[in-house]
Amino acid sequence: MFVERFKSKIVSHFSYFIGSKGDAVVVDPERNCSIYLKTAQRENMNIRYIFETHRHEDFVVGSRELAHLSGAEVYHGSWPDFTYGNVLRDNQEFRVGDVMVTAIHTPGHTPGCMSYIVADLESGYEAVLVCTGDALFVNDVGRTDFGGPDKRREWSESLFMSIVGRILPLGDHVILCPAHGSGSVCGSNIASREWSTLGIERLMNPVLRLSKEEFIEYKVNERHEYAPYFRLMEHYNIEGAPFLGAGQNCKAFSAEEFRSQMDSGAVILDVRSPSAFGGAHIPSSYNIPVDVLSFAGWFLPFDKPVLAVTNDVDDLEYVSKSLASIGYDNVVGYLGGGLSSWYSIGYPIESLRLVVFSQLKSWLDSGKEYFLLDVRSKDEYEEGHIKFAKNIYVGLLQERIKEIPKDLPIVVICGSGTRASIGASILLRNGYKRVYNFLGAMRSWKELGYPLSK
Amino acid sequence: MFVERFKSKIVSHFSYFIGSKGDAVVVDPERNCSIYLKTAQRENMNIRYIFETHRHEDFVVGSRELAHLSGAEVYHGSWPDFTYGNVLRDNQEFRVGDVMVTAIHTPGHTPGCMSYIVADLESGYEAVLVCTGDALFVNDVGRTDFGGPDKRREWSESLFMSIVGRILPLGDHVILCPAHGSGSVCGSNIASREWSTLGIERLMNPVLRLSKEEFIEYKVNERHEYAPYFRLMEHYNIEGAPFLGAGQNCKAFSAEEFRSQMDSGAVILDVRSPSAFGGAHIPSSYNIPVDVLSFAGWFLPFDKPVLAVTNDVDDLEYVSKSLASIGYDNVVGYLGGGLSSWYSIGYPIESLRLVVFSQLKSWLDSGKEYFLLDVRSKDEYEEGHIKFAKNIYVGLLQERIKEIPKDLPIVVICGSGTRASIGASILLRNGYKRVYNFLGAMRSWKELGYPLSK
Amino acid sequence: MFVERFKSKIVSHFSYFIGSKGDAVVVDPERNCSIYLKTAQRENMNIRYIFETHRHEDFVVGSRELAHLSGAEVYHGSWPDFTYGNVLRDNQEFRVGDVMVTAIHTPGHTPGCMSYIVADLESGYEAVLVCTGDALFVNDVGRTDFGGPDKRREWSESLFMSIVGRILPLGDHVILCPAHGSGSVCGSNIASREWSTLGIERLMNPVLRLSKEEFIEYKVNERHEYAPYFRLMEHYNIEGAPFLGAGQNCKAFSAEEFRSQMDSGAVILDVRSPSAFGGAHIPSSYNIPVDVLSFAGWFLPFDKPVLAVTNDVDDLEYVSKSLASIGYDNVVGYLGGGLSSWYSIGYPIESLRLVVFSQLKSWLDSGKEYFLLDVRSKDEYEEGHIKFAKNIYVGLLQERIKEIPKDLPIVVICGSGTRASIGASILLRNGYKRVYNFLGAMRSWKELGYPLSK
Amino acid sequence: MFVERFKSKIVSHFSYFIGSKGDAVVVDPERNCSIYLKTAQRENMNIRYIFETHRHEDFVVGSRELAHLSGAEVYHGSWPDFTYGNVLRDNQEFRVGDVMVTAIHTPGHTPGCMSYIVADLESGYEAVLVCTGDALFVNDVGRTDFGGPDKRREWSESLFMSIVGRILPLGDHVILCPAHGSGSVCGSNIASREWSTLGIERLMNPVLRLSKEEFIEYKVNERHEYAPYFRLMEHYNIEGAPFLGAGQNCKAFSAEEFRSQMDSGAVILDVRSPSAFGGAHIPSSYNIPVDVLSFAGWFLPFDKPVLAVTNDVDDLEYVSKSLASIGYDNVVGYLGGGLSSWYSIGYPIESLRLVVFSQLKSWLDSGKEYFLLDVRSKDEYEEGHIKFAKNIYVGLLQERIKEIPKDLPIVVICGSGTRASIGASILLRNGYKRVYNFLGAMRSWKELGYPLSK
Repeated sequence: MFVERFKSKIVSHFSYFIGSKGDAVVVDPERNCSIYLKTAQRENMNIRYIFETHRHEDFVVGSRELAHLSGAEVYHGSWPDFTYGNVLRDNQEFRVGDVMVTAIHTPGHTPGCMSYIVADLESGYEAVLVCTGDALFVNDVGRTDFGGPDKRREWSESLFMSIVGRILPLGDHVILCPAHGSGSVCGSNIASREWSTLGIERLMNPVLRLSKEEFIEYKVNERHEYAPYFRLMEHYNIEGAPFLGAGQNCKAFSAEEFRSQMDSGAVILDVRSPSAFGGAHIPSSYNIPVDVLSFAGWFLPFDKPVLAVTNDVDDLEYVSKSLASIGYDNVVGYLGGGLSSWYSIGYPIESLRLVVFSQLKSWLDSGKEYFLLDVRSKDEYEEGHIKFAKNIYVGLLQERIKEIPKDLPIVVICGSGTRASIGASILLRNGYKRVYNFLGAMRSWKELGYPLSK
Repeated sequence: MFVERFKSKIVSHFSYFIGSKGDAVVVDPERNCSIYLKTAQRENMNIRYIFETHRHEDFVVGSRELAHLSGAEVYHGSWPDFTYGNVLRDNQEFRVGDVMVTAIHTPGHTPGCMSYIVADLESGYEAVLVCTGDALFVNDVGRTDFGGPDKRREWSESLFMSIVGRILPLGDHVILCPAHGSGSVCGSNIASREWSTLGIERLMNPVLRLSKEEFIEYKVNERHEYAPYFRLMEHYNIEGAPFLGAGQNCKAFSAEEFRSQMDSGAVILDVRSPSAFGGAHIPSSYNIPVDVLSFAGWFLPFDKPVLAVTNDVDDLEYVSKSLASIGYDNVVGYLGGGLSSWYSIGYPIESLRLVVFSQLKSWLDSGKEYFLLDVRSKDEYEEGHIKFAKNIYVGLLQERIKEIPKDLPIVVICGSGTRASIGASILLRNGYKRVYNFLGAMRSWKELGYPLSK
Repeated sequence: MFVERFKSKIVSHFSYFIGSKGDAVVVDPERNCSIYLKTAQRENMNIRYIFETHRHEDFVVGSRELAHLSGAEVYHGSWPDFTYGNVLRDNQEFRVGDVMVTAIHTPGHTPGCMSYIVADLESGYEAVLVCTGDALFVNDVGRTDFGGPDKRREWSESLFMSIVGRILPLGDHVILCPAHGSGSVCGSNIASREWSTLGIERLMNPVLRLSKEEFIEYKVNERHEYAPYFRLMEHYNIEGAPFLGAGQNCKAFSAEEFRSQMDSGAVILDVRSPSAFGGAHIPSSYNIPVDVLSFAGWFLPFDKPVLAVTNDVDDLEYVSKSLASIGYDNVVGYLGGGLSSWYSIGYPIESLRLVVFSQLKSWLDSGKEYFLLDVRSKDEYEEGHIKFAKNIYVGLLQERIKEIPKDLPIVVICGSGTRASIGASILLRNGYKRVYNFLGAMRSWKELGYPLSK
Repeated sequence: MFVERFKSKIVSHFSYFIGSKGDAVVVDPERNCSIYLKTAQRENMNIRYIFETHRHEDFVVGSRELAHLSGAEVYHGSWPDFTYGNVLRDNQEFRVGDVMVTAIHTPGHTPGCMSYIVADLESGYEAVLVCTGDALFVNDVGRTDFGGPDKRREWSESLFMSIVGRILPLGDHVILCPAHGSGSVCGSNIASREWSTLGIERLMNPVLRLSKEEFIEYKVNERHEYAPYFRLMEHYNIEGAPFLGAGQNCKAFSAEEFRSQMDSGAVILDVRSPSAFGGAHIPSSYNIPVDVLSFAGWFLPFDKPVLAVTNDVDDLEYVSKSLASIGYDNVVGYLGGGLSSWYSIGYPIESLRLVVFSQLKSWLDSGKEYFLLDVRSKDEYEEGHIKFAKNIYVGLLQERIKEIPKDLPIVVICGSGTRASIGASILLRNGYKRVYNFLGAMRSWKELGYPLSK
């Protein structure tokens, strides 16, 4: 039995290729199907089945395109009403080579969630691994808020029953294969470790140490963000997204063309680091550093051309493929030659003032007036923040922009200075002038032992 | 000014990417356009124009797909009647950055052939390089037989006038950028060296040392093969081929599936070496070793699935991309696990006897009767062959199969043992039993100083 | 916590890179250390400790060179008397970032074997994975024969106690990280699946279902091969091998030079497939197909130049790196241009007759006399073989060559036709003429339901 | 005949691999020899000869190490007194396959300079290409200042005679293969185009249009910079540099370790863009953006550890290999996790104010006092600069630092903002506080049509 895990970094999504003796299954494929086809070729395997654990909300699932390319059949649960693929029965079994896959119904994250138990008949009938989708993660469990407030209690109870009644009983020895890892918005506290087992979760997953009532209470009150692009993902993953094929070509534009595209409505996405964006950037660009690219789903429009700014042409493939994996087929170009093409012909740049701990501290101590804007999530904020800082989550900043005063210097704060740079770019786009990004942010604040308000 | 040459190995085709200051042109793109888009991205350039030197006969030109992906405009000559792109005027000029391209009419290979003179205005107005398409090669000139026997003299004269009247006068210093290199069927004697200039050709190209009359006579009498797949290429290159996109997926088949595909009419293409094919192969497969893959154009059908046999999964990408570059979008699979998947379940194999010089010599000396089949081109044959050997070009063997006796052992002979393996596989497919491939073939025969008939 | 497993394919050896927050440990590094340094760089980690589970017998451990390059400290058990590194105490703990490593003494495979329990303090103190070296594999346990017959019972008991008393009690939930996978000679029946846990092994590993007495009896009577190169590995792994650095350069030789090197004593290693070797090969070469390269350790000398024959230049890097990983620093060249360079100048080739099931069956049925030589291991042979076949393990064939009659045609048999090709090449080197390789071999024989003797 | 050109980007150095029928020569190899060995392997060729055009001054030549690895022989001219290799006779000939190499003495750049004429006997005896080292470049000729002022006239005359008397007479048709391309300090005005011929140079190279007297006068008065690291290169290239082997390992350091290394004397090399350096950087680091890395040779010590700062781990291989190619074997580490590792624990950062055209213009117009420091070369400065700007070449800034006033804000100016960032980092290291980098610099100044002083 052969197992390979694939990670789609932008949304920290895991998919699985499991095969034996020339045949294989894929669980929860990402949109860029070529990775599975290449593995199939290298391993001399044929993809027979594609299993979806559930209707994904945060990325475009590649099932339909992969089925088209490989000839495999798609299977998923009975909710929602998918327009493609086959609906599974609980306990339905599939065999490829020595691999036996058993689909079990594990609702909670959504009513249609399935998990896939995998046995390796070369060794015996015991479960070897289980693909749990968004039911169970390393150190966390799935969200239960997608049905809206009315369903939340019901779905949370359902999730508890699925985990406690169907997944954990498979045994401590079973390897855990979830759909997401650390950094995903589908869980709040997924661990950075990607290797786990049901036993490890039973022993150490903090959510699983709660009683049923505590669990439900915890889940009902948990806070999650709902990024606007989810809506399109949900639509795509029910109806089937347009095929990716070879993907969108991302062209070099000269500074002149770039400016003219901007004038016609193109949106500028600067993926450079907070330091570089702080140093100099094109006015009215969004800064979404390449390692937190999924925040694009909060702001970037699907219906206008998106143009990238980067100093590293090698980033472009990652940027365009990753944005395509969350449905953006409109990354049509980039600034050829990077920012220096822009300023070398005298086009205007803007900077964002960067401040570190020692400076901020002295300002605050000096009594000068600042508006401290903490763009972390409400949970992070409540765990400890700088006194007087106001909390608006970075994803909601655009729509709550009116709450920010125009007459004060604004210091944007997050955990390390990265999300704050996104937030600061939004403020600059909205005409705010005296904006600071606090580099190091709460991490350095805590590191140096300064007082936190709760 | 930036220049990059791309080589499509299967038909030894060269294309050129030439750019300056953010803009670029591509000359004679191959079907797999992603290579130009990647270069454009790496060099921060935008492809503005795509130039075709002529209606290519031996591969699918990628102009239309590249234009679609890059937004560039396509230009070509006035013959034939292309259904896409723009027709050039003689001496029409194009400028991208410091690059000045001048299109000149250089008919002969076809009536519509264009050459593209490139100057680098950073240095001055003198020509720096010229893209000559199939007019002038390193050590050879283009074929003049595509118009049929009636036009051949006229086209040959035309070619002479184009080379002598328009290309060579550009000056000895001009770098030669032809559409083909060594191994192409578009010339008979193209040198292996890929770097040349007009001066080098003027001084050393043997065809350019002929007088006009000698040149015409030589060209009119020159022999060329016309591979059947050319017809589809000509059609595609006038009408525009289907877009390649991400290309055809090439699946692993189990031996059982492979056999069942064969039973339903799939054609087997064994791309292993002559030694490996000789050792063991699946009955009724074609052997076209991976380094002479273009012979596929003589035999492989376009309307049936093609299945590959190789021991090296890494070959598959080359095989499927290369066959796609000559129009085969039907390479749907391969034997997963290679030949051992086949014989390990007891399926029958066949071998092809391999013989080297010393053995063949002793057989011939012993007076035993053999049918010697020389599958090289008529020209090669006439330059020297083994006494009594009969010449049938490997490309024509299938249709002339009746000329081969069934009651004698047959020794297939080529230059080195590679084309002979193709020929031998055709004989085996046609029921011949006592077939030998002479490894080393004429090369070893000559190396060892044995007598040649002429 | 970050974990990456590396596989050295030639001996199916696993090493592990485990890190957290900028620091890392490596367990059982292979000789080519650059792979760990690259991972360290990509993950922004510093290698602090290198742990050896035991004195490896089948490959060169890279500890000393990796320590030199990274500044890390090496640790291992107290047996044998290593000339480098530090000796561990039982239960000694090491911490890097959130990773806690506890070394435990798990003798049996050797008296000095250590296992390394890894906890991820981000989640808690429970063990997450354990590196068991050659104590416990997926579906098998380590050999106990390296101490010689006198120690075997003692070591076997010791191994039982280590597994049952120290490893399994860590809990079903713990992920198993052994030093070898399927194909290794360090276990007889390691499963192809590379993912397992202690619980999976407790439930399904057949050796772990034996009682203590049964286990000891089983291990004492188990048969293992001891490849001659092990002796050098043991020496290197106590004393420290020469540093690999950038590795040996492997040069192209012309056929003439190749022959002259052969005349001066160079050994020829043909890594092509059994079909290709069968079709044609250079007389007196060993055939060790690239996918079973570790058999080199049975035959290849360390003190003479080794020259490779392959048709695929891309194999060379794998061949020379892999042979270096088992101590061969003498792969100095290869036949440039592959076999056709050889036969194209008329040099002699030899072939090896290949036979498949149907032919062999009809021969046997016809009563013609053949010597059937089964080169599989004694265990495989005893599980079922063709009547009258004589068993000599391929590794011992050279030294037992006198047992093979010179006056009969010899059919060499293994599982699939690969090891038989090695064996046949040894026979040919020793002057046997009528040698056949049975392609498909016992696999096809069983597939087709023919009778087996036991 | 096969030709491949290799480019070592850091010093824009070209080397050449030229081969035929299994044998090859390499001209002017760079220190990282593995690139030639890989090509030799891919092309099935054996490197027989290594030719040096001259004692290189700006990079470490790899001849001795490549000779050691390949068995090839090294040849060079008779000046200086090399401690390795063989001295050539004028017109000495070498043959490998169909390639004929003729070494000719072309002094001028140094007294021992050789050029190598290459003919392809497959086509004939005419020269096909010539490797001219530092005698003749595309659009420029070599420096003549390395012998000191006393020799300069003599060497310049010598160079003229070599070009006019020996190189150009080879014919317009000969392809030019120089040792350097655009960006090299070995020529002032080398064109960006890398393809040229002797004829193209004869027609368009501005230096070749001068009379002998004009040429000498021009060369004698030409200004060149002499970077301090040249001295070590000259030494290495006479004595032979230490072998590179697998190269220096470049380790991730935590911010704490990084700081402690700094405290022990390590030098910090920040290779990020001017924008990023401007935004935030570690105090007292040098900024040498990755695309102008060769400036390291002006400042970086050879005898202290060098630590890199970059946000892109992928840059590290380029940085350490490239610095090794100019003799820096002391790039021992980098800041793991990039700059955010530093500021996230509250360590201090510094910024460099960035200004663009419009701001600078308004400041200047306002009459406020600024010290304008133009760090371009004297030639560039004299071609046109901003009024009142003082010129100190960036390479000399450290030693002339006293000429910069401490009491004025300083605006550093170069062509585009890149070298100015190097200069500004030097000022900051020297305690200057009010330092500005003018992004876009003279390029935007000219683009917008503002007045230049000459």
